[in-house]
Amino acid sequence: MATRAIAPGYPQFFSRADGCRVWDADGNEYIDFMCAWGPNVLGYRHPNVEAAVMKQLREVDSGNGPTETLIELAETLTDTLDHADWCLFQKNGTDATTACVTIARAGTGRRKVIMAKGAYHGAVPWCSPSVVGVTAEDRAHLMTFEWGDVASLDTAVAEAGDDLAAIILTAFRHDVGRDQEMATTDFLKAARAHCDRTGAMLICDDVRAGFRLDVRGSWAAQAVKPDLAAYSKAIANGWPLAAIAGSDRAREGAEKIFSTGSFWYGAAAMAAGLATIRILRDTDALAHTVVMGERLRSGLDQVAARHGFRLRQTGPVQMPMVLVDGDQDLRIGNALCLAALRHGVYLHPKHNMFLCAAHGPAEIDRAIEGVDAAFTEIVAAGVEHA
Amino acid sequence: MATRAIAPGYPQFFSRADGCRVWDADGNEYIDFMCAWGPNVLGYRHPNVEAAVMKQLREVDSGNGPTETLIELAETLTDTLDHADWCLFQKNGTDATTACVTIARAGTGRRKVIMAKGAYHGAVPWCSPSVVGVTAEDRAHLMTFEWGDVASLDTAVAEAGDDLAAIILTAFRHDVGRDQEMATTDFLKAARAHCDRTGAMLICDDVRAGFRLDVRGSWAAQAVKPDLAAYSKAIANGWPLAAIAGSDRAREGAEKIFSTGSFWYGAAAMAAGLATIRILRDTDALAHTVVMGERLRSGLDQVAARHGFRLRQTGPVQMPMVLVDGDQDLRIGNALCLAALRHGVYLHPKHNMFLCAAHGPAEIDRAIEGVDAAFTEIVAAGVEHA
Repeated sequence: MATRAIAPGYPQFFSRADGCRVWDADGNEYIDFMCAWGPNVLGYRHPNVEAAVMKQLREVDSGNGPTETLIELAETLTDTLDHADWCLFQKNGTDATTACVTIARAGTGRRKVIMAKGAYHGAVPWCSPSVVGVTAEDRAHLMTFEWGDVASLDTAVAEAGDDLAAIILTAFRHDVGRDQEMATTDFLKAARAHCDRTGAMLICDDVRAGFRLDVRGSWAAQAVKPDLAAYSKAIANGWPLAAIAGSDRAREGAEKIFSTGSFWYGAAAMAAGLATIRILRDTDALAHTVVMGERLRSGLDQVAARHGFRLRQTGPVQMPMVLVDGDQDLRIGNALCLAALRHGVYLHPKHNMFLCAAHGPAEIDRAIEGVDAAFTEIVAAGVEHA
Repeated sequence: MATRAIAPGYPQFFSRADGCRVWDADGNEYIDFMCAWGPNVLGYRHPNVEAAVMKQLREVDSGNGPTETLIELAETLTDTLDHADWCLFQKNGTDATTACVTIARAGTGRRKVIMAKGAYHGAVPWCSPSVVGVTAEDRAHLMTFEWGDVASLDTAVAEAGDDLAAIILTAFRHDVGRDQEMATTDFLKAARAHCDRTGAMLICDDVRAGFRLDVRGSWAAQAVKPDLAAYSKAIANGWPLAAIAGSDRAREGAEKIFSTGSFWYGAAAMAAGLATIRILRDTDALAHTVVMGERLRSGLDQVAARHGFRLRQTGPVQMPMVLVDGDQDLRIGNALCLAALRHGVYLHPKHNMFLCAAHGPAEIDRAIEGVDAAFTEIVAAGVEHA
């Protein structure tokens, strides 16, 4: 269950969120770097997003079918995402990744799906990080390779032979508890070339990074286009929405499959999505998170060095992973994050974190001071350098 | 895709919903008997539910963890549902049915799951009504039997042997396009006895019927308790929420599995759920839908007879299936429902429909008049009696 992902000693319940701040059930205030585990990209309770939802709620949310907002949102997404010709909407990231795989199988008539070892693509039997309650058959056609290793990918593709339906990749390597790795252009191009040659579908699981790295899709700067991409989390700034954006190459499979959910056409979340995407597209909100992310990274490095620690800060600065060098068992990281909590800063010791557009220089500097105080505290308490 | 389930000639897009009425994108008003395919139980935009959501939205919706509303909702559900000792929350009915199966497998260490032929338990590979994009292995451990036939269930249980993890049943037989069948007490007791004897879990898929037939759970009147029950649709009057309610017998499996989603702890939908369950528990809302359902059923029978047709009206009156006797290819039903649309009544020719608490005698009588006019119209247009 999700609570297991909450670091030891952390508050389990919350009472309020606003901008880049959260309050726990006891009323303690924190500068927040988890952003609801990804959904908050513009700031909690962003006025434009909430206003769009309120307007929609006066008309209809869940009805017998969608509203015109679905068309507007789909057109906005296909205009914005560089690979997309059509969209489907759901509620969970897992809905989107699962349907991407089903669409790839339906379109190709094949079965094998290749994913990176240890990558997270959702929480249902075919991809769950746990195999408890999962049967061997649930993963009969799932093959793995080493992230970023083209030779390893080549081997898996060769093994799949003429039964390869899809290669599914996260936008970058954002596995829990380890240094993050960006997707190199060579690696992405190799995956693209395999799919072009075999007729398989290239799926970008952009659930976590989507609409944070690049509003055009996370691989846009590398000019590598997936056939299918899965979005959720930040797509509607916290309102429950997921989407698949596909190219014409993937359309046939999408038209064939059965896929539905009771709330998938709810208009409130779509209105939130439309407002969110427009702001991300038309403002410098994402560029701002990069500037703030750099300020945080540099400040944390200085603070750590002053206390005699070295940090391993990896991943995009707006989705930072912060580990303490040599801290294999997370003893230092856990102590540091718990101390930071006491100083009003909500970090995560082993999961990538998130910045939002509401983080300003004052909040970043305040957070760095909190971490400084936390280092002082753990050193005083006898936590040794690694 | 969901649009395939929309009857031919029906409007695809909607602009407004209120009480028991919907408006299509062209502004045409209908008395609605689909209730958003199940979620609307109290009336669209019910003031108490919306007020509870608005209050929650001023505090936090998606945050780093749940709010205290989760506890209040879980306690309300375990107090209200006669079998329940604990709850888990999700977004889709399919999330809940899938996790019930995973929990049953985790708790029993077994693999086989028995379901009724043709039953709908969701829209992912293990249970989708379509096998396009689905592999044989996705259903390797799924076995079927004939709904309501104890001998057929006995056979399937014997075949599963010591590998039986669960029997999953919808609250009643609500398959598309055929007469609905209630679950007899003998049938439910046979399923319960098999689970008691073998240690398997009895799962009630109460996604469609839950909080419509009986606020204590759809089998409460028959005093048959499932180990796990899946809810969604009506649970929060249209806000996106699903839940698993389990007994202590199923707790071990639930504690073991990995299950999460980005928006599963969103507090707005939980506030809606809490308000909805309280109204259903404390008022005569559901009893009212039965009285209105009887009024509709009797009125439709009289109108049909007057025009020389005989209807097959089955299922609970508040979840009516209305078929025209002898209308194998739905030629009459499709024509009748399209004509009813023109007279301001939104019916479905082959899917069970839904009443909500906002349907009053005036709306029911107005709908019966609309169907009367629709019969006149299709007879005049030359649609022959079956």
